[in-house]
Amino acid sequence: MVSNMGIKVPGFLANGISVGIKNSGEKDLSLIFSEVPARAAAVFTTNRFPAAPVILDMERMKTGLAQAIIANSGNANASTGKDGYKDAVAMSKAVAEGLRIREDLILVASTGIIGEKLPIKKIVGGITNLVGGLRVNGIPSAEKGIMTTDKIPKIECRKCFIGEKEITICGVAKGAGMIEPHMATMLSFIMTDVDIDQNCLDKVFKQAIDRSFNTITVDGCMSTNDTAIILANGIAGNRAITGPSKGMTNFRNTLFDVMVNLAKSVVKDGEGATKLVEVVIEGARSLAEAKKVAYSLANSNLVKTAFFGADSNWGRIIAAIGSSGVSLQTDSVELHFDRVPLFLHGRGIKGNEKELSKIMEKDNIQVSVKLGMGGKSFRLYTSDLSYDYVKINAQYHI
Amino acid sequence: MVSNMGIKVPGFLANGISVGIKNSGEKDLSLIFSEVPARAAAVFTTNRFPAAPVILDMERMKTGLAQAIIANSGNANASTGKDGYKDAVAMSKAVAEGLRIREDLILVASTGIIGEKLPIKKIVGGITNLVGGLRVNGIPSAEKGIMTTDKIPKIECRKCFIGEKEITICGVAKGAGMIEPHMATMLSFIMTDVDIDQNCLDKVFKQAIDRSFNTITVDGCMSTNDTAIILANGIAGNRAITGPSKGMTNFRNTLFDVMVNLAKSVVKDGEGATKLVEVVIEGARSLAEAKKVAYSLANSNLVKTAFFGADSNWGRIIAAIGSSGVSLQTDSVELHFDRVPLFLHGRGIKGNEKELSKIMEKDNIQVSVKLGMGGKSFRLYTSDLSYDYVKINAQYHI
Repeated sequence: MVSNMGIKVPGFLANGISVGIKNSGEKDLSLIFSEVPARAAAVFTTNRFPAAPVILDMERMKTGLAQAIIANSGNANASTGKDGYKDAVAMSKAVAEGLRIREDLILVASTGIIGEKLPIKKIVGGITNLVGGLRVNGIPSAEKGIMTTDKIPKIECRKCFIGEKEITICGVAKGAGMIEPHMATMLSFIMTDVDIDQNCLDKVFKQAIDRSFNTITVDGCMSTNDTAIILANGIAGNRAITGPSKGMTNFRNTLFDVMVNLAKSVVKDGEGATKLVEVVIEGARSLAEAKKVAYSLANSNLVKTAFFGADSNWGRIIAAIGSSGVSLQTDSVELHFDRVPLFLHGRGIKGNEKELSKIMEKDNIQVSVKLGMGGKSFRLYTSDLSYDYVKINAQYHI
Repeated sequence: MVSNMGIKVPGFLANGISVGIKNSGEKDLSLIFSEVPARAAAVFTTNRFPAAPVILDMERMKTGLAQAIIANSGNANASTGKDGYKDAVAMSKAVAEGLRIREDLILVASTGIIGEKLPIKKIVGGITNLVGGLRVNGIPSAEKGIMTTDKIPKIECRKCFIGEKEITICGVAKGAGMIEPHMATMLSFIMTDVDIDQNCLDKVFKQAIDRSFNTITVDGCMSTNDTAIILANGIAGNRAITGPSKGMTNFRNTLFDVMVNLAKSVVKDGEGATKLVEVVIEGARSLAEAKKVAYSLANSNLVKTAFFGADSNWGRIIAAIGSSGVSLQTDSVELHFDRVPLFLHGRGIKGNEKELSKIMEKDNIQVSVKLGMGGKSFRLYTSDLSYDYVKINAQYHI
């Protein structure tokens, strides 16, 4: 989060309030609103039990236009059957009435406990207040309304030039557990005033997802509710981006910057996480193999607990690499922590214990694996596995 | 472990001693010896970084004969390169000399920390004592010598009749972490006096592995050292088992009984485990799909922490099933805990909270998932994820 910069995007209003979905009394209902209908692109969970709002949004995204996102925390409205779908529609209907816009321009998102009926009366009852409080500088408030086990709000804003026009991109995200590939966040909403055509927006957003939320893992668990949406309302007045151009490059790089940093924030704030571990796999024969090795390593509980214990027990990493299902020449595999070699030519390296123990005490550690088989690489961010992960998740529901 | 029965197998001697590989002073070197060369079958880890003793044993198993197993704990002799292989050979050479048998009849196994050089002098120096202490009732002592983070010894003995001859099967196992599919134990040695031909032994042992160690998971991590060996010395004097017969059926069922119970002991003693969770998947289109769903559920940290917290947060199970990669009709999926329904027709069931909270307090819980798509099923045993798992594994190496 860049503190010395206004967290606002021309043409966007936002707000977050509490309507009592969370017992804690914290904010649990958020609204993001574009003053004009915006081009929209979205990516959703690939979980076979998508939550009701995900099903609804998938239908609505067919038009490529949206003007508002209503999101609640504290209840995922997942595994709630037909009633859950009706509740998602009811949420959007109440917002459409409150904003006096078409209902099919509303997207809905939910996050929280799975399998409980949504307290729809509380939500509908809060819409007037929610709409009434919409404001230019309401993005941080909207972010608060989508947080669950998050300890820190996740907001990233950047500006760049498209030709002579300055455009703004602000993104919010929530997510700390159930963080895995294939859309590795619970919710993220990106607002921008850029003018861009549908085809370019879809393409660049997909690329940005692959570079950001699809390269992080906390616990290897995939949510039923993962939703990332970008709204581009075009009011910056730039020459519309319609294909490869300097403007497209600027926009893409800035979007990557926003989303990669949001994704890293999610891992840093991973449930119980005390360390951010960057896993870099190089020398793979294919991207698919590089990813397999990266996830096998990053999701190993033994590797993650060793990082929590500041223990350079690299044998567990070797075991995790070896069990990824990718065939390897063991003698050609190299393992480094922050450029310090641990494993070369099929065996461990001695004499680096002092350096290693310093590295293991750091909050950010890079684990680099060279497979020595080809030219493909993949980078992944993960966290360690601590007592607090167990504490948070053993007592989440009760 | 059946206490009211002698833990011994005709023709087998065993022993376990301490030679100082473990700092704790506990037993760390074990020997199992058959008075005559035995038919042998073995299954090893499929990890791409197999430990040195695994590489050696794979070569030696080609003959199908073995007479002794030397095994150490405290050091895995894995990721130790060519020197590690030489050390494994040196272990077997010393045992061959001590026992005055051919070196190629010795199998070697190691378990413990990965990547440290084996203290081969300590091991070789202890062989005279180890051999000298071999005895008929030494199996429990040998079991102690292969334990690492295990809290309880794992020994199962059974007898059955093959024709008019009674035969004995005793198995030992160690393993509490790095327990996953594809040979889900660190080490298990099975001794029997049955007379059986090589082909039948290979076949029935493979079947038993699939029913036992290949149906358990603790942490989803696959070891570099997994080794399961059966030695059948034939001195029971039964009519040799050479194909399908009543004798074969008796032997197989008894072997399954021994190995399934050893496997369950491994999960019960899983690092930090407080509960044994039986996952039963039914109604899959294929065994592969049933397994995918079972492992996705059983290895979910969110599911495992919920069991630890005695929290019937079944939404996490639905999320885990939905992220297994198996395509599903969500409305046809059913979820039960100990026959109490939690999820039917695409939504949660209300009104069973009291029953559920009782079930969640139990040490043994059955999770049953009916996919409603076909006739294939799979059963898997797993444990919960507790503070102690993190504690044990954050501080294992240091």
